[in-house]
Amino acid sequence: MKTSAFHLATQREVPADAEIVSHQLMLRTGMIRKLTSGIYTWTPLGLKVLRKVEQVVREEMDRSGSLEMLMPSVQPAELWQESGRWDDFGPLLLKMADRAGREFAFGPTHEEVITEFARAEIRSYKQLPICFYQIQTKFRDEIRPRFGVMRAREFLMKDGYSFHMDEACLGRFYQVMFDTYTRIFERLGLEFKAVEADSGAIGGAVSHEFHVLADSGEDQIAHVPGSRYAANVERAEAVAEGEANAPQENLQLVDTPDARTIADLVKQFDVPIEKTIKTLVVEASRSSGQALVALLLRGDHELNAVKAEKHPDVASPLRMATEEEIRDAIGAGPGSLGPFRLPIPCIADRQVALMSDFAAGANSDGQHYFGLNWGRDVALPRTADLRNVVAGDPAPDGSGALELLRGIEVGHIFQLGRKYSEAMNAVVMDENGRAVHPAMGCYGIGVSRIVAAAIEQNHDDNGIIWPEPMAPFDIMILPLNGHKSHRVRELAEKFYGELRAAGREVLLEDRNLRAGVMFADAELIGLPHQLVIGDRGLDKGVVEYRRRGGESREIAIDDAVGILTVD
Amino acid sequence: MKTSAFHLATQREVPADAEIVSHQLMLRTGMIRKLTSGIYTWTPLGLKVLRKVEQVVREEMDRSGSLEMLMPSVQPAELWQESGRWDDFGPLLLKMADRAGREFAFGPTHEEVITEFARAEIRSYKQLPICFYQIQTKFRDEIRPRFGVMRAREFLMKDGYSFHMDEACLGRFYQVMFDTYTRIFERLGLEFKAVEADSGAIGGAVSHEFHVLADSGEDQIAHVPGSRYAANVERAEAVAEGEANAPQENLQLVDTPDARTIADLVKQFDVPIEKTIKTLVVEASRSSGQALVALLLRGDHELNAVKAEKHPDVASPLRMATEEEIRDAIGAGPGSLGPFRLPIPCIADRQVALMSDFAAGANSDGQHYFGLNWGRDVALPRTADLRNVVAGDPAPDGSGALELLRGIEVGHIFQLGRKYSEAMNAVVMDENGRAVHPAMGCYGIGVSRIVAAAIEQNHDDNGIIWPEPMAPFDIMILPLNGHKSHRVRELAEKFYGELRAAGREVLLEDRNLRAGVMFADAELIGLPHQLVIGDRGLDKGVVEYRRRGGESREIAIDDAVGILTVD
Repeated sequence: MKTSAFHLATQREVPADAEIVSHQLMLRTGMIRKLTSGIYTWTPLGLKVLRKVEQVVREEMDRSGSLEMLMPSVQPAELWQESGRWDDFGPLLLKMADRAGREFAFGPTHEEVITEFARAEIRSYKQLPICFYQIQTKFRDEIRPRFGVMRAREFLMKDGYSFHMDEACLGRFYQVMFDTYTRIFERLGLEFKAVEADSGAIGGAVSHEFHVLADSGEDQIAHVPGSRYAANVERAEAVAEGEANAPQENLQLVDTPDARTIADLVKQFDVPIEKTIKTLVVEASRSSGQALVALLLRGDHELNAVKAEKHPDVASPLRMATEEEIRDAIGAGPGSLGPFRLPIPCIADRQVALMSDFAAGANSDGQHYFGLNWGRDVALPRTADLRNVVAGDPAPDGSGALELLRGIEVGHIFQLGRKYSEAMNAVVMDENGRAVHPAMGCYGIGVSRIVAAAIEQNHDDNGIIWPEPMAPFDIMILPLNGHKSHRVRELAEKFYGELRAAGREVLLEDRNLRAGVMFADAELIGLPHQLVIGDRGLDKGVVEYRRRGGESREIAIDDAVGILTVD
Repeated sequence: MKTSAFHLATQREVPADAEIVSHQLMLRTGMIRKLTSGIYTWTPLGLKVLRKVEQVVREEMDRSGSLEMLMPSVQPAELWQESGRWDDFGPLLLKMADRAGREFAFGPTHEEVITEFARAEIRSYKQLPICFYQIQTKFRDEIRPRFGVMRAREFLMKDGYSFHMDEACLGRFYQVMFDTYTRIFERLGLEFKAVEADSGAIGGAVSHEFHVLADSGEDQIAHVPGSRYAANVERAEAVAEGEANAPQENLQLVDTPDARTIADLVKQFDVPIEKTIKTLVVEASRSSGQALVALLLRGDHELNAVKAEKHPDVASPLRMATEEEIRDAIGAGPGSLGPFRLPIPCIADRQVALMSDFAAGANSDGQHYFGLNWGRDVALPRTADLRNVVAGDPAPDGSGALELLRGIEVGHIFQLGRKYSEAMNAVVMDENGRAVHPAMGCYGIGVSRIVAAAIEQNHDDNGIIWPEPMAPFDIMILPLNGHKSHRVRELAEKFYGELRAAGREVLLEDRNLRAGVMFADAELIGLPHQLVIGDRGLDKGVVEYRRRGGESREIAIDDAVGILTVD
């Protein structure tokens, strides 16, 4: 492709409303254009990248034995009502009515449609296991679309769904999908990590997320280098470390009029933060029969909302109590709470159970206890895993100390079990003629998000540095003063022809731009290989080869095509 | 692919609600499954065909220099309000509101979005000409979706849009698109015809439709075999034939109490139908200043509504007057109308102007005139082309006598001109720095409809006969008694491996079906080449080769792979 016949619309300025690098660079390279909030047009440059990702995903899904199909985007409300998600999905679901007034949704995912398909098409155990997938535009009406295609409302997704007679078969195929995803991200040339994950609203017991690693990632990942252990911090189990010590100090009630936070207490009373407890009051679950429940964490630890919500006595979604609710129930403000003589039930994080001689609020404004001890002063409450792991925590599998990374979730695989086959009564006859609900798995990849994630991981101050498998073109040919120098133009055309004949995707810059503009564009767009042709080099019989983000060297004219066509 | 690992769900019965052959066969082969009215899932078998069509379309569009992109499905109402089509498109447009209450439509076509894109991205004549295209799911909320994917609500479309500084450039590129479309349908192996067409609601002056020829086609096409002339009957110009003769008969008023139609008149009075005139009364346009206008046609000719609507004195859309309106205005019923002493304005079809000694209603119930002549008895009214051409009519370009064919519209190209660039004020700077509205073309292909049209054209009583370029697989291997005969099974596997290694797409039937069921399935699915392997043949060293819809012969085992891998 020659730039004069392509559509390139780069811009120098960093767009004001783009907060993260990938969004800025996708706008600056002209890969995408915003139509309206969370809805983007993929230009020819951007679509080339998207299609490359799509093709790798398709090839690996096909290799896994999965069958590509195409389900409708417009889905009848009745199916979603059957599964119970018409309401559960809430305003994320973009709803519409046709000319006859029938209600539909723009499909954000296809568990309902595939289950409806399966209950009509799959009757016998002989047809199982089977996995269907599609690569399709989805829509989720995000409350706050942001970061360009990273969290857009309209996006391209690969979604797959498998059906099995039993969990063992599902488990085996789940491993095939795990390996397939691993190959996909390897082939795309991305640094990534597969982590244990929470299943969230999709349902099911076992799930893994695949994250592209990048400092700007929204998710935090805990892993042990060199071990298999890796989990989303949302889910990573925090193991209590150390042993409970016998009390050393006496219990003391201290006036702490200016200490309203753990940080105040540490600073004003010179107490180590590891010797403090913070008490968070949240709404209790209906089934607990209580209104509020207190959660106890070591002062330097953070509450993990996903873990807390799963506790049977805690309301889901998690809601922090208001100051008024706290005062009504306890008689003190949130800055002075603690487990000693606490009039509401409480749950302690596992690590809290091992603490001794600790400080905590006295449930009386402006007062704290120091030298508190479990057993001696106050009974040890129920314990649970309530906190986020931190770097240095032991991994739950004993494989070593955790390190933390940031990642961008680009894939998620789930063992769904029978949630949808039961809700929608999809049944298959087993070998004995009995109707059973098949076990299901579901497997998603955010195809358009991968493009943004790759840029977050691979860029510098000048622009994108494409991993080769995702680059819109392999090679950019940059003729200096091509409009003036016949021999430069001629050699550029020769390289262009020969490299294309050798199967390379080549972009020839023939718009006669000034050298500075041309180089800036080339760096911004970030093709892996650049070939600079100028009169000065030709006098010496050389051209300049530049590896985007790497080396730059002179090579003999006659060697250029050979060097650029080695696989 | 082996059938045991694929998803095949054929059925013997003709589905009750499928009216046309392609719909029946797509359901019987299991290529599509209905989710709800006008909305279909493409199964793995169906999607393979759809993707082949898509790929040919993509390759030829790329070859034309057009640039693939991807615009959003969900389009803001404001854009459609700007072009005026939010209302014009009517209930065909599937409308929705997001969580913030902003209105959107599921894109049925993308003139608005591409014009918005162009006005932001294209500033200079240097960027033109340019053509963008996409292959994307569209939605039109048809009032009566029918015939499966032939007239579905959700469908796959290729839509392209070009921009030009002037009409001459648009005209040249239009020819490139015409040639591109011709290559696409040739490569797909379809019998088709490009015809002059009416531009309808999309707008613009010049347009051509591409029709797949099939007896079941909804459209009628007029063409001259061996000449370039072909047009949709909606648009084909009817040329008056013959010369006006001098009057031979005297004018006679005749009582015709039982003649309420032309057929009655012909039968009861032995008058040739070519000597009769029928008078149709329709609503007049506002600009004509009249309420009604009469249209005169030769008794055996049909009114062409598209042509009539274009006449400045006729209301658009066309509306026939009610009997009451006719009686009020003329004093006679619709069965007794004619041009002599007609109290409302009238327009004669061109052919009518050449008639002499003709019969027509007397504008008095139960009476007709015979021997009427223009000039002598009644002044010749204005003439216009108002009728459908019929077989045998001369082509307007003088190339010969017209023949009629039936076709299915699968492509439509338009020279739009400046309709959208002006309405949405997209401007480009010309060489002199003046802002001009670019001329636009638009180019559509109904990708999913092509699949149905191909089946309408290529089938027999047993099932589909795929044109090779569209077949889901090239070859089907059919082992007889494969579950019992080791050598049959072994040879089937050998062929399977070798043919795949040679680049063929092969479907191996390994579900151990009874021979009758297996053959019926193979005929139904309609792959071009079948290889039947049975013990009886192996005893003689042969297998059976069957060309779907064609020959069947024995070939030596050793020749089979060679024969099936010749291009």
